[in-house]
Amino acid sequence: MQNWGRTRRFLIYPAVNFLNNRRSNPIAANPVFNSAFGIRSAIRFQHRGFGSDATKIQRNPLFSTLNSEDISYFKGVLGEKNVIQDEERLLTANTDWMHKYRGSSKLLLQPRSTEEVSQILKYCNSRSLAVVPQGGNTGLVGGSVPVFDEVVINVSLMNNIISFDKVSGILVCEAGCILENLITFLDTQGYIMPLDLGAKGSSQIGGNVSTNAGGLRLVRYGSLHGNVLGLEVVLANGDVLDMLGTLRKDNTGYDLKHLFIGSEGSLGIVTKVSILTPPKLSAVNVAFLACKDYFSCQKLLVEAKWKLGEILSAFEFLDNLAMDLVLNHLEGVRNPLPPSLHSFYVLIETTGSDEAYSKEKLEAFLLHAMGAGLITDGALAQDINQASSFWLIREGLPEALMKAGAVYKYDLSLPIENMYNLVEEMRIRLGESATVVAYGHLGDGNLHLNISTPQYEDKILAQIEPYVYEWTSKHRGSISAEHGLGLMKANEIFYSKPTNVVHLMGSIKKALDPKGILNPYKVLPHSLSSSS
Amino acid sequence: MQNWGRTRRFLIYPAVNFLNNRRSNPIAANPVFNSAFGIRSAIRFQHRGFGSDATKIQRNPLFSTLNSEDISYFKGVLGEKNVIQDEERLLTANTDWMHKYRGSSKLLLQPRSTEEVSQILKYCNSRSLAVVPQGGNTGLVGGSVPVFDEVVINVSLMNNIISFDKVSGILVCEAGCILENLITFLDTQGYIMPLDLGAKGSSQIGGNVSTNAGGLRLVRYGSLHGNVLGLEVVLANGDVLDMLGTLRKDNTGYDLKHLFIGSEGSLGIVTKVSILTPPKLSAVNVAFLACKDYFSCQKLLVEAKWKLGEILSAFEFLDNLAMDLVLNHLEGVRNPLPPSLHSFYVLIETTGSDEAYSKEKLEAFLLHAMGAGLITDGALAQDINQASSFWLIREGLPEALMKAGAVYKYDLSLPIENMYNLVEEMRIRLGESATVVAYGHLGDGNLHLNISTPQYEDKILAQIEPYVYEWTSKHRGSISAEHGLGLMKANEIFYSKPTNVVHLMGSIKKALDPKGILNPYKVLPHSLSSSS
Repeated sequence: MQNWGRTRRFLIYPAVNFLNNRRSNPIAANPVFNSAFGIRSAIRFQHRGFGSDATKIQRNPLFSTLNSEDISYFKGVLGEKNVIQDEERLLTANTDWMHKYRGSSKLLLQPRSTEEVSQILKYCNSRSLAVVPQGGNTGLVGGSVPVFDEVVINVSLMNNIISFDKVSGILVCEAGCILENLITFLDTQGYIMPLDLGAKGSSQIGGNVSTNAGGLRLVRYGSLHGNVLGLEVVLANGDVLDMLGTLRKDNTGYDLKHLFIGSEGSLGIVTKVSILTPPKLSAVNVAFLACKDYFSCQKLLVEAKWKLGEILSAFEFLDNLAMDLVLNHLEGVRNPLPPSLHSFYVLIETTGSDEAYSKEKLEAFLLHAMGAGLITDGALAQDINQASSFWLIREGLPEALMKAGAVYKYDLSLPIENMYNLVEEMRIRLGESATVVAYGHLGDGNLHLNISTPQYEDKILAQIEPYVYEWTSKHRGSISAEHGLGLMKANEIFYSKPTNVVHLMGSIKKALDPKGILNPYKVLPHSLSSSS
Repeated sequence: MQNWGRTRRFLIYPAVNFLNNRRSNPIAANPVFNSAFGIRSAIRFQHRGFGSDATKIQRNPLFSTLNSEDISYFKGVLGEKNVIQDEERLLTANTDWMHKYRGSSKLLLQPRSTEEVSQILKYCNSRSLAVVPQGGNTGLVGGSVPVFDEVVINVSLMNNIISFDKVSGILVCEAGCILENLITFLDTQGYIMPLDLGAKGSSQIGGNVSTNAGGLRLVRYGSLHGNVLGLEVVLANGDVLDMLGTLRKDNTGYDLKHLFIGSEGSLGIVTKVSILTPPKLSAVNVAFLACKDYFSCQKLLVEAKWKLGEILSAFEFLDNLAMDLVLNHLEGVRNPLPPSLHSFYVLIETTGSDEAYSKEKLEAFLLHAMGAGLITDGALAQDINQASSFWLIREGLPEALMKAGAVYKYDLSLPIENMYNLVEEMRIRLGESATVVAYGHLGDGNLHLNISTPQYEDKILAQIEPYVYEWTSKHRGSISAEHGLGLMKANEIFYSKPTNVVHLMGSIKKALDPKGILNPYKVLPHSLSSSS
């Protein structure tokens, strides 16, 4: 116990030993479900039949149906083993992590090289066979599973690190590399990945790039549009685009790689990635703080940006209902602060190159924040285990929500000052019928609004949508900050983008994938694809 | 004088008073030439008739020629004053900063609003009148001036700051804002621009975005693809794309704004920019160092990345011939180090939030570098004037080269370990006929190779090109790191990009600008545009 601060005692959470390293998954990914977030036991959810968007759309009749000749062709290219028709494995490939979306694909292909991806796509395009590119299948918007009978192309076997330059920090690897494996590899080289997210134990770098994954380090290192230096991509017609540059600066023509960052596999399949990785700085400190109201969280953020400056590396928040949920549903999680009527919690991480300086700076900041009344209590992790346990509260939230029952997930970018008003409005709107839980990357203006109910019900959905989207649009927010649109929000794109911009996206799609075989029914509104 | 270091004395350059603030232009931009780099007197260069690429290409016969009805239409939209046919003003608009490229446009339009840009473009598109978007006209590759009689659309009058959010640091402004004015404005708000470059006194943010300008802060804050949050762009047909988001995260559909970052005005005219600006950290320190060889420069960079970590904000280098050039041709510049046989000079800047810590950290690093034999001498600026004078050496190089005579400029990205081999090879290749000068952003792997001769000669050019491009291509470098391709290198794109990628660029161009009226003959190879 450390007496920290002049008037309030900062509790130091006793060391916890159930985690080996900071923020890693407690357990390796479930081999059956290949699920994100490393859920310990092979939980088998019922398909929740949540008024799936798939029921509202029709299969595109221009797409062919698989036949035995197709299977023979694929076996010729990939070998027997990587042409999978086994029902159990197909069930996994057809089902998303939340068990909210389920397709009915009859074929899973597992190419081992760019050349194989190219041959598969060239064939599918000529045969008008629709495909779904799949990585770790950890998406939350139904983007990585089939809607109907699309062929699943899973790049998991393409998981080699191609090169790493210790001078420049530039990593080149195949798309199927699991994010956590890259993080572990870089750790041995003295570097880190510029992105980190709860699903890292299963999610793959190709999927991260294709969905422009945000996560926990964006506030410090920025988005993948800034960090990805090059991509190799296979187009729908099998054409391989070598844009795999390893240069920090390259202004020769249009920078087309950006089209494939965040287009959710609908313009091409990412097969290789070149990415700039930051040096690993040794001094990491984590504080878990309580704030009496949302206004204090905001003020704390502004102060942290100024006072912590170049060492601030994360600023996450959760409200008290989120805390209750994670305490009730996840084993081994404890609130580091004594029970009280705290309304909000903030996790601050700093990362610097000098331990003494960083810690002193963070402590001085916390003292200042306490004196200014911005925080009402707090704990500063004394070692890596404590830091991990603080992170587990924040990172365990998606899993806790899954265990609590049905969950309606919204991933919004909003102006920070308005953000929490939406949460309060939703509570009034839904009353006793649902628990409205809020957390997210406050430092980036990214709210994860989660509405937890015992089961999915259309009448609850009708109270949430389109209200949440309209509210977000009115405040010039984004209805997808970091999750993408996928199947869930393809038709809602107009809440965040003007019509002519969406039509231009349609033109780009048409130019790159004229038959629309790549990840159909996703990202772009169905009105656009059906008219094409 | 400060005794600094154990064995070597670090000289402290006496304060110089000819500059008011760090790295600002000594004099406001020349009103006649609106020239970059703020050249003091109204220098009038002769047109150097440097075997211009324009002589090798034909005017596209599908473009119309201006007539009196066109002029009347434009006067109706913009008013008399902003439809400019005055010969002297047209000469300025037709001539690039280096006076290497000169067009023969008969018309300069100065819209005051997006709506006016839209009306102009809609009309030009319907009439097949080719246009050149122009900002500060500080480009170095002939990208911002007409090749033939294209209409110049200069957005200088669109120079309003629209909003600035002091909490998030997000700036929204019109495209014609001069970079230095934005830097000055942000300074009053406690923020800085994430980019800074020698031409800031004239260059405009719309042009910076359109050329994906790199500059001096990229090593710390990354490229504009990471910092620009939103754009408003007018397409060739006059359609206004509102992608002016002010959110850090927005994954709703394809992120099309990236198409317009670095496409050199050939896909649309940027009219408004939303950009994330970093907080201004108060502790800025600048050291000017000497290294005995290029290998030491490289080792110094690696050490600086590790030992200075989060506070490193610039790592620039120049060789001894570059130093001689700037000392001989720029007034008021002094070498802060005593005359010696130094082969290389490195400028290191650190930026942090704590003065004592930052300075101590930099001093410890310099001590270490001295001890390890990586640097042979050095000076640490003691105040802002000294820091400015150090920067002036590096930033004054383009102007010094202009004054020295003709200059063949190459802006290359290369693997750092090979970079200087090219410089040495060029010296052997050219012998006494030219002075080969090297400087650049070593921290980003960006070499500015400048070949200075008394006058432009085809036979010298033939010794340089395509050799430089072939060499760069062989080492998987980029023939344009940050300057763009413009007119100068449009046909050389294949040295850095594969054929199918270039053809895809052509498809995108065709989709967005079917008649090809926007900045013709630039960026993409002429073979592609003539076949369209």
